[in-house]
Amino acid sequence: MYIQYNMSKLLIVGTVAFDAIETPFGQTDKILGGAATYISLSAAQFGVSSGIVSVVGGDFPKEYLAKLNTKNINTDGVEIIEDGKTFFWSGKYHNDLNTRDTLITDLNVLADFNPVVPKEYANTDFLMLGNLHPAVQMGVINQIPNRPKLVVLDTMNFWMDNALDELMEVIAKIDVITINDEEARQLSGEYSLVRAAQKIHKMGPKYVVIKKGEHGALLFNNGDVFFAPALPLEEVFDPTGAGDTFAGGFIGYLAKTQDISFENMKRAVISGSNLASFCVEKFGTERMEDLTTKEIEERLLQFKQLTQFEIELG
Amino acid sequence: MYIQYNMSKLLIVGTVAFDAIETPFGQTDKILGGAATYISLSAAQFGVSSGIVSVVGGDFPKEYLAKLNTKNINTDGVEIIEDGKTFFWSGKYHNDLNTRDTLITDLNVLADFNPVVPKEYANTDFLMLGNLHPAVQMGVINQIPNRPKLVVLDTMNFWMDNALDELMEVIAKIDVITINDEEARQLSGEYSLVRAAQKIHKMGPKYVVIKKGEHGALLFNNGDVFFAPALPLEEVFDPTGAGDTFAGGFIGYLAKTQDISFENMKRAVISGSNLASFCVEKFGTERMEDLTTKEIEERLLQFKQLTQFEIELG
Repeated sequence: MYIQYNMSKLLIVGTVAFDAIETPFGQTDKILGGAATYISLSAAQFGVSSGIVSVVGGDFPKEYLAKLNTKNINTDGVEIIEDGKTFFWSGKYHNDLNTRDTLITDLNVLADFNPVVPKEYANTDFLMLGNLHPAVQMGVINQIPNRPKLVVLDTMNFWMDNALDELMEVIAKIDVITINDEEARQLSGEYSLVRAAQKIHKMGPKYVVIKKGEHGALLFNNGDVFFAPALPLEEVFDPTGAGDTFAGGFIGYLAKTQDISFENMKRAVISGSNLASFCVEKFGTERMEDLTTKEIEERLLQFKQLTQFEIELG
Repeated sequence: MYIQYNMSKLLIVGTVAFDAIETPFGQTDKILGGAATYISLSAAQFGVSSGIVSVVGGDFPKEYLAKLNTKNINTDGVEIIEDGKTFFWSGKYHNDLNTRDTLITDLNVLADFNPVVPKEYANTDFLMLGNLHPAVQMGVINQIPNRPKLVVLDTMNFWMDNALDELMEVIAKIDVITINDEEARQLSGEYSLVRAAQKIHKMGPKYVVIKKGEHGALLFNNGDVFFAPALPLEEVFDPTGAGDTFAGGFIGYLAKTQDISFENMKRAVISGSNLASFCVEKFGTERMEDLTTKEIEERLLQFKQLTQFEIELG
């Protein structure tokens, strides 16, 4: 018998950037950051063939791209503007690590970014639209002739404030939206997250994932709802990239299993929550770079112990 | 074969009170309230034989006590001070329903409360110390000659601020403490709830339950942790009593099943979370008064759907 194994392709659009981070535990100089970086490192844990569409400047170290390549992440779609500078974000977390101040946002080469999808990813099965200007996200959607099996969108309040019409056009075209609780409230005008999800369904997405940070994440699909807790940790070191790592774990798991049923999406949000719990343990991408399958599986058992119960009715 | 069925006894000490509540959805005059009221109504769902120790004034309607009696709640331990006035609390919730201002706290007969445990409950199996002055809680502990199977304490930041030494003496004598996340942080001086629970364990309780309101509840037992989400609701009408209803469901389930293992405590926090999800649907105790077993079991299925997943490793 002859079995042809079709590995899913995953295309990720998002920032590849420099971050400078200050937390109560220390601070970094410019280190590797960006939504596409975190998403791809997280999805890489599932062995899928992923490619990034992004842009960096001539100042971006080649070894950062090489580091991604060793994880089977294709960076052919990362345009390098030799005389430009890489997107730079700097932030300082408050003592509770739940809130932060943005100190610097230098768009640099991102300001005029025209994404180009590499030919070999134009037939991608899974498309992850990381947080970026919705016009860029739409530009990527329009370069993919056959609709992918699943399109996941991550966005943020900044685009709701500054590019709502374009954002709504993107939201109408995607399958899954991942936003945080405050953003879900802003987008829907509803305080109750159940009602917010109902309204967002009507904007287009069949699936709505509401991220609540340390309080976990909710997955809505019309009447159905599933909840993935965040793992209670002794110490959160640096929350940067946790949301992107969650999204990368979510779509990476789906791309690996090639099953987009609601039952499998439950496992996908647990996988996302699992990976995010590692991300916050060290500065930046550090923890995600040397993460092992064994560590991930051990922690998956912790998630089961944390949430699973047997109860008899009557 | 002859089977003797020993029904567990549950003794509840706490306030029986008048509440006046204002939420964005409306407001009430003085209605039935108090920690012991909510705890006993919630525990009553499990058919255990419970008794309340409390105090009210001559202004307290006899039909309120009769209402509790119809639920198999013994009120012989509710002292009536004919020429006194019943404890009165009034509060106004903010638009998000997560925060509230206390408008009035008239201790009245509660100011000089000397609890007397009725003879038939001096051998109680389960003891629930509802939120009250720790000296009153200790007074009840001291009237029970044989240590109950399980003692659960609920308390609040007010006693940490105003009677910490007495509170610490009570905490040293109990098995389970239920407090909210901010109170756990205040009591332990630790921001991380995992570390807070570790420190609180050292104060005495083997089990620490940290209530996070709409974000669910965590059950800690040394290295083990279990998480019960709150059910995502379309609308929260009035959060008053939700924490007490949670505690009542927790100890009521344990008293019914007479099993205080960690595995069974998982079911108990789910039961508590389940009952609390009903409490907030109407003003005051209204929803808890006509709740049916069928409704509770149907919602338990929702909790399972919300949290249970199958995932393969490897």
